[in-house]
Amino acid sequence: MAQKNTTREEDYSKWYNELVYRADLAEHSDVRGCMIIKPYGYAIWEKMKDLLDQRFKETGHSNAYFPLFIPKSYLSKEASHVEGFAKECAVVTHYRLKNAEDGSGVIVDPDAKLEEELIVRPTSETIIWNSYRNWIQSYRDLPILINQWANVVRWEMRTRLFLRTAEFLWQEGHTAHATKQEAIEEAEKMLDVYAEFAENCMAMPVIKGKKSESERFAGAEETYCIEAMMQDGKALQAGTSHFLGQNFAKAFDVKFADKEGKLEYVWATSWGVSTRLMGALIMTHSDDEGLVLPPILAPIQVVGVPIYRNEDELKAIDSKMARLAKELKELGITFKYDNDDNRRPGWKFAEYECKGVPIRLAMGPRDLEEGKVELARRDTKTKESKDFDGIAHYISALLVEIQNNLFVKAKTFGINNTRSVEHYDIFKKEIEKGGFIKAHWDGTKETEAKIKEETQATIRCIALDEPEEEGRCMVTGNPSPRRAIFAKAY
Amino acid sequence: MAQKNTTREEDYSKWYNELVYRADLAEHSDVRGCMIIKPYGYAIWEKMKDLLDQRFKETGHSNAYFPLFIPKSYLSKEASHVEGFAKECAVVTHYRLKNAEDGSGVIVDPDAKLEEELIVRPTSETIIWNSYRNWIQSYRDLPILINQWANVVRWEMRTRLFLRTAEFLWQEGHTAHATKQEAIEEAEKMLDVYAEFAENCMAMPVIKGKKSESERFAGAEETYCIEAMMQDGKALQAGTSHFLGQNFAKAFDVKFADKEGKLEYVWATSWGVSTRLMGALIMTHSDDEGLVLPPILAPIQVVGVPIYRNEDELKAIDSKMARLAKELKELGITFKYDNDDNRRPGWKFAEYECKGVPIRLAMGPRDLEEGKVELARRDTKTKESKDFDGIAHYISALLVEIQNNLFVKAKTFGINNTRSVEHYDIFKKEIEKGGFIKAHWDGTKETEAKIKEETQATIRCIALDEPEEEGRCMVTGNPSPRRAIFAKAY
Repeated sequence: MAQKNTTREEDYSKWYNELVYRADLAEHSDVRGCMIIKPYGYAIWEKMKDLLDQRFKETGHSNAYFPLFIPKSYLSKEASHVEGFAKECAVVTHYRLKNAEDGSGVIVDPDAKLEEELIVRPTSETIIWNSYRNWIQSYRDLPILINQWANVVRWEMRTRLFLRTAEFLWQEGHTAHATKQEAIEEAEKMLDVYAEFAENCMAMPVIKGKKSESERFAGAEETYCIEAMMQDGKALQAGTSHFLGQNFAKAFDVKFADKEGKLEYVWATSWGVSTRLMGALIMTHSDDEGLVLPPILAPIQVVGVPIYRNEDELKAIDSKMARLAKELKELGITFKYDNDDNRRPGWKFAEYECKGVPIRLAMGPRDLEEGKVELARRDTKTKESKDFDGIAHYISALLVEIQNNLFVKAKTFGINNTRSVEHYDIFKKEIEKGGFIKAHWDGTKETEAKIKEETQATIRCIALDEPEEEGRCMVTGNPSPRRAIFAKAY
Repeated sequence: MAQKNTTREEDYSKWYNELVYRADLAEHSDVRGCMIIKPYGYAIWEKMKDLLDQRFKETGHSNAYFPLFIPKSYLSKEASHVEGFAKECAVVTHYRLKNAEDGSGVIVDPDAKLEEELIVRPTSETIIWNSYRNWIQSYRDLPILINQWANVVRWEMRTRLFLRTAEFLWQEGHTAHATKQEAIEEAEKMLDVYAEFAENCMAMPVIKGKKSESERFAGAEETYCIEAMMQDGKALQAGTSHFLGQNFAKAFDVKFADKEGKLEYVWATSWGVSTRLMGALIMTHSDDEGLVLPPILAPIQVVGVPIYRNEDELKAIDSKMARLAKELKELGITFKYDNDDNRRPGWKFAEYECKGVPIRLAMGPRDLEEGKVELARRDTKTKESKDFDGIAHYISALLVEIQNNLFVKAKTFGINNTRSVEHYDIFKKEIEKGGFIKAHWDGTKETEAKIKEETQATIRCIALDEPEEEGRCMVTGNPSPRRAIFAKAY
């Protein structure tokens, strides 16, 4: 607590990096670009994982597991895929070590060179579609609706905890369909699942949209995405869902016999979210004091801290809190009672504030006398004295209110930082202020590249609910049917 | 169904391999030694995972995640560890591919060679203890009770689905303690957790024991294990829990200040179970017709199959089954009603038998008339006609009975195939019959190696509950304080 924490105002990026450490969420490992997700951070990720997994199963998907390694030649089979993924990846070339003859340790055994190098998966389309070839013969075998929870590796040069790491955890859905229409519906359905999860569980408002051609996933015909606005006004792509057309089916020769017995290529989708969502969660809600967590994802939803001068007082508070713990458990609320005698209440207050615990209860001798408890909200930093009797039900309702409040606050922030711009000159100034800018664009790669080069802003998406509006591209003056959303992005 | 399945009697090993495919649990991938866990197999693994995870949390452990890659030099830090694990492993030497100049695809970019090679983790002691050094300063930081769910890679030359694969899924617990006593207690506690899970969830009886010195984990001072007997009489090591002493703390210089401020090395344990448990589960209960699953781990606990001659009959059965589905759901029982019109009832019966669904219900026109349903048990292959009313509660109780029956059956098999032997000549004959043999052994590596070489049998463990019994080693005649358990093993 001695050292002052960097505020968002002072240095947003530094504030984020410090917070990930302070709240004990993750840390850098000695292995370049690989992070260690610490227990508190992992507990939040586990909650996200469970809530997502539940949604995948409710929409008919099953989990499976495919190999970590992909033969190098597989990557080359889909032309644009190899362009996107073969560049920066971990390559396994040998399968054995041996003792160095000089006794200095172990060295790679040159005799144990693989015939074909293996790539640590950066994504699994190729290895999965290579399997689907054997799984799919007829329309009766379709659809295949599979998801995988896995680690993947992309050899990123500049890494940031959760936001961009060489190894990260994610889920990747890979589905196979008999018709184009069904595959597109699947890609859209999973985008809806992501958006609903982001908004209802993470309390993070998102815009659902389509990527421009140059921002598409390598191998996709259409990439849908959810984009969220961070507190510094930058965009963060929080999830993507791809309609892959027949590209992977063609690359891996996956055909099915339709009802008439005619052979057709299979239609595909893939969709994924990753530990990057942890970064999004942190940057959407947290403040200068620490993490702010939506109750649905908080590993500890309520913490109780006793304030006492002697053993008798502590005992009396302990017994009250034990009763409350039981009541909260029955309501499905996670409660931690921290009566550790080694730490002062002030230290504990700061600690749980930093960890983003939504509700803190403190009980001292006077509260005890008066049948009260002090309740502090992490989101609004307000405190109130409440009757201890009936507090469990009050807390239950308050957790819902906090969840909603965080969403509304973030939603309002997003609205206040989204504006329409007509002229490129103004765009250049406005984009420096952060936030999302809705502007007309002529739909060409060239214009998109020019804007990116001159302003560092990218087209985040064309929002699905963006109304048609005849306009002129702010750069070229050419016609545009609707606005795109521009922002600087993580 | 056309091809006859291999029976256990004919060829146990072939029966197993076929069954894994027939029941759609897993398959070999094109990547040497790596398996694909298919949705039905993964659903069983997920149940195991959830039940184990719950037990780890109840005993105070948290999950975390450490990097996939381990710098080569880390492996060398603990002398016996490197001997055990550095041999066959996947080595990452490069971090980039590039397009071949002749346009033939992608090749490894020689300019992207790593300064230090990275090993795909075969187990994570080294990278985790390298982190613990920074996490532990004082006794207040202890104990650390962490578990990780992860994939690991050991470059096995001979692989078998689930039993021995190059990549497998597992959990690895890694704990740090202030005292030797506490670390030993932790290792023993987790062995108990494994044994309880194996017996109560997998219905698989196990013997808890200690490994002989030569069978210990590389880097451990004591390796505890649970050993199960498969139906062919071979042993399968189903889980291990290691007391690591201060070996890793010394290798990675992890010290803590005790209450008096004195610096001490930290005490360690590690413990793990893997997808190998899937192999153990299959081989403990299944029969020539297919999988037999204990109800607790069955993805489908009850299946309903309608038998009908016309639409009206189907509708009537559908409506009865819909009511039952609701009742079973309320009881927490997983029910699948299969009224797919493309498949005949006989096909369905064989299919769910193969998949090991514990209870099958069939309802035909006469059952409908009489208010009956035909109930078939997978474990005993018995059928009975039951009143449809009240069947849900009957099923609920029957699932418990099936779970118990499977355990008792396996337990009886284990008892019937365990015997004591006094003379090495007899041992050599007896060991060929399969099963566990309890015999006196002089405690030396030499005798153990001789027995292994001459009979292929290994010491599975010295059972924790083995009574002291003065005896003479069956090979050397030297004194022995208690019997060890010998068997051929997977």
